[in-house]
Amino acid sequence: MNTTPDNAPVFLDCDTGIDDALALAYLLGSGANLVGVGSVSGNTDALQGATNTQNLLALAGHGHVPVALGHHHPQARPYGGGAPHVHGQNGIGEVELPDAGLELAPESAPEMLVRLARATPGQLRVIAIGPLTNIAAALRLDPELPGLIRELTIMGGAAMAPGNITPASEANIHNDPEAAAEVFAADWEIVLVPLDVTMSHVLEEADLERLQASESPAVQAVGSMLGYYFDFYKGVFGRRCSVMHDPLAAAIAVGRVQATSAPYARVVVDATDGPGRGQTICDLRGLYKGYPKPSGAHCRVVLEAGEGAIDEILRGTLALADASSVARP
Amino acid sequence: MNTTPDNAPVFLDCDTGIDDALALAYLLGSGANLVGVGSVSGNTDALQGATNTQNLLALAGHGHVPVALGHHHPQARPYGGGAPHVHGQNGIGEVELPDAGLELAPESAPEMLVRLARATPGQLRVIAIGPLTNIAAALRLDPELPGLIRELTIMGGAAMAPGNITPASEANIHNDPEAAAEVFAADWEIVLVPLDVTMSHVLEEADLERLQASESPAVQAVGSMLGYYFDFYKGVFGRRCSVMHDPLAAAIAVGRVQATSAPYARVVVDATDGPGRGQTICDLRGLYKGYPKPSGAHCRVVLEAGEGAIDEILRGTLALADASSVARP
Repeated sequence: MNTTPDNAPVFLDCDTGIDDALALAYLLGSGANLVGVGSVSGNTDALQGATNTQNLLALAGHGHVPVALGHHHPQARPYGGGAPHVHGQNGIGEVELPDAGLELAPESAPEMLVRLARATPGQLRVIAIGPLTNIAAALRLDPELPGLIRELTIMGGAAMAPGNITPASEANIHNDPEAAAEVFAADWEIVLVPLDVTMSHVLEEADLERLQASESPAVQAVGSMLGYYFDFYKGVFGRRCSVMHDPLAAAIAVGRVQATSAPYARVVVDATDGPGRGQTICDLRGLYKGYPKPSGAHCRVVLEAGEGAIDEILRGTLALADASSVARP
Repeated sequence: MNTTPDNAPVFLDCDTGIDDALALAYLLGSGANLVGVGSVSGNTDALQGATNTQNLLALAGHGHVPVALGHHHPQARPYGGGAPHVHGQNGIGEVELPDAGLELAPESAPEMLVRLARATPGQLRVIAIGPLTNIAAALRLDPELPGLIRELTIMGGAAMAPGNITPASEANIHNDPEAAAEVFAADWEIVLVPLDVTMSHVLEEADLERLQASESPAVQAVGSMLGYYFDFYKGVFGRRCSVMHDPLAAAIAVGRVQATSAPYARVVVDATDGPGRGQTICDLRGLYKGYPKPSGAHCRVVLEAGEGAIDEILRGTLALADASSVARP
């Protein structure tokens, strides 16, 4: 896991999605070297998510970043229709972004990932904040992929914390357990950012107001989306607020938020039809001995992150106001 | 869940087992009204466990408590041979107890449980500290059983903590997931005492010395067994010590240790052949709202217990020296 920010190329695979939109704004505002974005069905369907991503990129002055359409259906079952009660019918809380009219990339998301990895061997940082359908497809397209990328950061799963879509499973992994099982079985350095850590970093009303007061139209739009998200989280926390699943994973991936507890663990995904379907089973039995690294483990499971995580997400996102004025022609 | 000690009749189902032996000594020393004991295969096989139980009861001056043999094989698979690396070849750390030559009860453990429940409707406290094979068999023998007993306390499972036999599952439940699934599906008041709480109450060397210095031959014997158990736990904790799975469940069941966090949760058992087999999936998604009681939930999951739990287990067990001198003819 990296511990300092750098200029490594970043490929983001997402299902935009309200917190995906904030993660995107955060990455742009933080100056991450975003070289491509893949879209996958999850919070909303892959095509809607791609359109949302393109329109937000354009609004932020980054319409040049290529967006590739990925898989509509999970590996083993038809797409279930997303989570309109969480993310709205259009995936971004019914916020209408100006239609940028951008073309999709002439390749699929898995093809784009493989091409970028081959073009910059050992350098590409992959951040997956949706179901892992595209990542598993890329693995099958090029089994050498794990040796070609620098690190794969995944927002998903629940190690010791409760799930959010079933008692034991988190939405991204539950949406395509078969793909996730393949991804965790492959031999690459994975940083898993599960509910254990995302559920303990909460954006409050005052934070939301700061985003909504930004001069950047993109940040304003994300602020509006988050209002919708806050309403959903009232049911979870008993007050209007929201957790920052995807932005936290992005901030950890680019080295701007430090994981303060991130033991190596063997991780397998439950792809049965039983009550644990979609669960990330992380072998954390070393808990009582300070988590010695298990032999063969290549996944770090982030259990805790620094106190300043929300401040960093706000700082990076709000910097988009300045970044945009530079990026715009 | 009861909160004050009382004289309710107690049926203990166990697989004696080093910590089962301590739980038994604790219950006797604490003056629990133990009216019958069932034996099931788990830490050791059901017959060996019954013999261990009988010999320890006799050594403690309680040879009159009837012991019934229960199921040798789990519900769906043959018995796997126990855990000699944890509990020794004879289940009690190779300690040789004097052979009391007692007869087994003329009924099976499930039959004894049903008979006792029918004899004292609404009063019987059932404490299950082994696999749930006998309890599920009793349920099938008498589907009205849940309405006839006062409360069922189960040592087993892992809610948010890691498992101990696989990354996600605890030994008692993993030894017979099919039986456990039936038991949790039935409509009785269950108090589940999982690894979440048992792994955080540790008996240290100084505690062990107190037990070994007891004047009661039964407590001395249990102290010797625990020496063996301490050696195993060095691999888990990095130092000689041991957790108190079964005695903690017993102390909570009889109201002498208070559960300080024990939310109601819906609980299902994973009886698939997948990586989560044997897991107790506890729906604890109410975590972020202080655990409101889910509708239909009839199981409390003990997550934390009072600081004084180990002291209470020592106090109760050491009281056996006095209790024995009274009980002996």
